[in-house]
Amino acid sequence: MDERDKPQYHMTPDEFRRHGRAVVEWIASYMERVETLPVLSEVAPGEVMAAMPTAAPEQGEPFDAMMRDLDAVVMPGITHWQHPGFFGYFPCNASGPAILGDLISSGLGVQGMLWQTSPACTEVETRVLDWLVAALELPAVFLSTESGGGVIQDSASSATLCALLAARERKTGGASNRDGLAAASAQPTGHIVAYTSTQAHSSVAKAAMVAGLGRASLRAIDVDDQQAMRPEALAEAIRADLAAGLVPAFVCATIGSTSSHAIDPVRAIAEICGQHGLWLHIDAAAAGPAALCPEYRWIHDGVELADSYSFNPHKWMFTNFDCNCFYVRDRQALISALGIMPEYLRNAATESGQVFDYRDWQIPLGRRFRALKLWFVLRWYGLDGLRAHLRRHIELTQRFRAWVEADPNLVVAAPAPLNLVCFRHIAGDEASERVLNAVNESGHAYLTHTRLSGAYVLRMSIGAIASEAEHVEAAWRLVAAAAASASA
Amino acid sequence: MDERDKPQYHMTPDEFRRHGRAVVEWIASYMERVETLPVLSEVAPGEVMAAMPTAAPEQGEPFDAMMRDLDAVVMPGITHWQHPGFFGYFPCNASGPAILGDLISSGLGVQGMLWQTSPACTEVETRVLDWLVAALELPAVFLSTESGGGVIQDSASSATLCALLAARERKTGGASNRDGLAAASAQPTGHIVAYTSTQAHSSVAKAAMVAGLGRASLRAIDVDDQQAMRPEALAEAIRADLAAGLVPAFVCATIGSTSSHAIDPVRAIAEICGQHGLWLHIDAAAAGPAALCPEYRWIHDGVELADSYSFNPHKWMFTNFDCNCFYVRDRQALISALGIMPEYLRNAATESGQVFDYRDWQIPLGRRFRALKLWFVLRWYGLDGLRAHLRRHIELTQRFRAWVEADPNLVVAAPAPLNLVCFRHIAGDEASERVLNAVNESGHAYLTHTRLSGAYVLRMSIGAIASEAEHVEAAWRLVAAAAASASA
Repeated sequence: MDERDKPQYHMTPDEFRRHGRAVVEWIASYMERVETLPVLSEVAPGEVMAAMPTAAPEQGEPFDAMMRDLDAVVMPGITHWQHPGFFGYFPCNASGPAILGDLISSGLGVQGMLWQTSPACTEVETRVLDWLVAALELPAVFLSTESGGGVIQDSASSATLCALLAARERKTGGASNRDGLAAASAQPTGHIVAYTSTQAHSSVAKAAMVAGLGRASLRAIDVDDQQAMRPEALAEAIRADLAAGLVPAFVCATIGSTSSHAIDPVRAIAEICGQHGLWLHIDAAAAGPAALCPEYRWIHDGVELADSYSFNPHKWMFTNFDCNCFYVRDRQALISALGIMPEYLRNAATESGQVFDYRDWQIPLGRRFRALKLWFVLRWYGLDGLRAHLRRHIELTQRFRAWVEADPNLVVAAPAPLNLVCFRHIAGDEASERVLNAVNESGHAYLTHTRLSGAYVLRMSIGAIASEAEHVEAAWRLVAAAAASASA
Repeated sequence: MDERDKPQYHMTPDEFRRHGRAVVEWIASYMERVETLPVLSEVAPGEVMAAMPTAAPEQGEPFDAMMRDLDAVVMPGITHWQHPGFFGYFPCNASGPAILGDLISSGLGVQGMLWQTSPACTEVETRVLDWLVAALELPAVFLSTESGGGVIQDSASSATLCALLAARERKTGGASNRDGLAAASAQPTGHIVAYTSTQAHSSVAKAAMVAGLGRASLRAIDVDDQQAMRPEALAEAIRADLAAGLVPAFVCATIGSTSSHAIDPVRAIAEICGQHGLWLHIDAAAAGPAALCPEYRWIHDGVELADSYSFNPHKWMFTNFDCNCFYVRDRQALISALGIMPEYLRNAATESGQVFDYRDWQIPLGRRFRALKLWFVLRWYGLDGLRAHLRRHIELTQRFRAWVEADPNLVVAAPAPLNLVCFRHIAGDEASERVLNAVNESGHAYLTHTRLSGAYVLRMSIGAIASEAEHVEAAWRLVAAAAASASA
C-alpha cells in the first residue's frame, strides 16, 4: 500500500508524541483558565449539534482541525465541573495524577475481564482496594485475603444493582437466575422485597426495576427530622411483609444521601437485617472518603455488620470518572449471582481457583485498567495529602454553614456534617429558586437544588480540588446578595 | 496552610505539563517497543500483588516513583493487547487519536448524565452516532431525528441488557418495572421468554439472569452447519412457548458471533419476530464495523427490521475501551424502561422535552464524555482510512485461511467471511491444544480457542491496528510448525 495516498492512515509514535504534547498543553492551560470561564454552559438545545457537519468525513483530517473544533464547537457547550466555583450536584474531580494514570490505561489498552487477559490489571486493583479497607478502617472481612474483596465498578448505581442481585440470588438459593423471579416467587422462597429510605438515591429504585423486583417491591422507609432512615419504621415494614407471606431480602442504607448527606443509622439497621437474614448494602458514594480522617470515621459506625459497601473515588477522592469501589463480605455470593463461563473464556488460571476474574463481579464483560488512576492518586497525594483536602473542604463548608445561620434571610435545612450544606430562603420556595437562579446566572458559581420535607432547598457542595476559601467566599457573597434581594 | 508542608498537595498545571509529557513519551515509546515484548504475560498468580506494598503511603510520592513501578511492577503483568502479534479474543485497539480524545475527556472531567450537566457531552454523542448510521448504512429510523437514536454504552453486554429491559417493559406494558416480573407474570401479559442461538455471547444469558427472567426463560436456538441460528427452529420454539401459555418477548440475533463470526439470518428472524411482536436486538459487537465498506454491507441484511442494534468501536474500530454504540428504533421504549426522575435532577431543559438525557438510556447514572474519542477517530482516519484498515485485516485473514486450507495437518472449522479464522488440527482436540500452547509460548503471537460442534478450535482474530502482513506471516509459520510437530 502506498502510504502517500493515506496521510492519516497511522498515527505514528512520533505523531502521537507531537499531538500528545499539544493535548497535555491544552489541558494544563484549561486548568489555568477554567476559573475565568462561566461555570454553566449557555448554549441552547441543538446549538452544538448544529455546529457540526451532518456526515463523518470521508478523508482523514489533520489533528489541528479537531483541536480547533474542540475550542470552537465543544467548549461553549461545556459546564465546567472542574471550575473552582462548581458547587452543584457532587464533586467530580479530575486531578492531575488521576488523568495521567487513566492516560496510561488508555495507552496500554488491555482488557481485565479475566486475570488471564492481563494479570496486573486484576492484581493492582485487588491490592489498591485492599489498601482502602485499611485506609477507611472498613471491616477486615472486606479484604481479598478474607472471605470478601473489593472491585471497581463504573458507578454506585452499578454497585447497588450488583448487591441487589447477590441478595436476590442468596435469598432464592439461585432460583431466580436459574428459573426466573416469577418461578422463584412461586416457591417457598417466595416473593422477595427490598427496603431503602425515602432519601435514597434514585439508583436503588432503578436497580429494583432492572432486577425484575419492580418499584412496588421496594419499600421507601420513612426518615426522621435529620433525613435519616427510621429503623423502627424499617422493622415494622419487614414485619408487615413477613406477615403478608413476602420474603424480605435486601436493605440499602445510605451514608451521605444525595440530597442532604443524611446518614442512616447503620448499626440499628444492621441488627434488624441480621434478625431476618437480609442483605445489607451501604451506599456511601459521596461521603465515604471522609472516613480517611479518623475524626470522621464515626460515619461508618456499624459498617462491619454490612454485606456490601460502596463509595466513589470519582466523587470526592480526586479520581476522574469512572471509579466506584465496591466491597462484599462474601465474594462467593457475588460471583454466584454474576458468574458465567463460556468455552471461549476458559483458561488454566481460572480453573486453578487461584485468581479473581473480575468479569464475575460486575454486569459487563469487558473492563479497562481503572485501578491505575486510583493507584496514582493514592501515591501522589498519600493518605495525608487526601486528608488535607477533605479537611479543607469540610472546614470551608462549616464556614459557609455559619454564614447561612447568621443570615436573616436564610435557614439551614438539614444537618451538614461534612461538605454539603442544604439551605433555603425564609420567604419560601419561590424566593429560594430566585436565589439559585441569580447565583447560577452570574457564571461565577453553580449550585443545584433538591426538596427536603417538601421544601425547595439549595445545595452547596464543596469538594472540587480547585475550590479554595476565596471561591467559597465569592459564592457566599452572591448567595447573600441574592437572598437579600429576594427578601426585598 | 503552608504549602511547604504538603509537597504533593496539588499537581499544578506546570507539574501536569511536565509529568504529562513524560507519560506521552512513555506511551509513544511503548508503541515503538511493544512488538519486542512477549505478547502474553508470564507472571504467576499473586506475583504482581506481592511486589506492591501492603498499605497505601501516608505521604505523597514523587511522580517518578509511580513511573518506575509502572515499569518494574505492572509491565511484567501485562498481556499486550496492542502487540501486532495479538490475535486472541477480539481486537481491542487503542489508536493515537482515540487515546488523545479520551485524554481530553479526562481533563474536562464533565458528567453527561443530563443534557443540562454539559450539553456538548450529549450533543457530540448524538451527532457522531447519527454519522455512523449513514456510514454503516443502518436504517434511518435509528437516527436521532427520527423515532430512534444512538447512545454509547460501556459494552455490548450492557446494550443487550438495555434492549432486553426495553423488550420486557414493552411486552408487560410497564408492569414489570412497576410491580415486578412475578406480579407481571400472573397477569394476562404472562411469563415472558427470550431467544438467542447456541452461539450467542454469554452476555445474553447474563442479561436474562440480571433482568429476572432466569436462564430457563432464555431458549438457546439450534444453529446450522455455519453456526448461524436456524430460523425454523426459532419459529418452532416460539410456537411451542405460545402453546404453553408463555409470552415470547425478545430475540437476540448475532452478526459475527464471538466464537466464529457466524452471521444469523436476520431477515428471516425479523419476519418471525414481526409476526409475534417480539423485540429483535442485533448484537454486531465484533463484526459491525465491516459494514463501513460497501462490499461487506450484506452482513446487515434485514437490520432495517430490528428494534435495536449494537456494535463496538472498542473492538474493531480503533477506539479504546469503553465504547459500544447502541441504537434503538423507538427511543421512547428505551426511556420508558430506564427513566426515573428524582427531584435533585429536575431541570428546565429536561422539562422542555427538547433534549436527550442519556442517563435514561443506560443502567448507571453517571457517564463520561466518551464521544470525544470516537469523534477523534472518525475525523483522524476518515471513513476511507477506517475502510483501508478493515480491508487490510480482512485481506490478511483470507490469506491466513488459504494457508490453513492448504496445510495437510489443519482444517478450517467455520466460514471466515471477515477477520476471524477458526481452525483445528486433523488429529483432534489434543493436537489442536498443543498447537495453541506452542504458539502462545513463543511470545511472538497469541491466539485463543473455542469449541465448535464439540471440537476444540483455534481462533485467529486479525484486527489490531498494528498487525501487518509480516506479523500474520510470522504467526502462520509458528502455527504450521506446531501443527507439523503435533502430527509427528
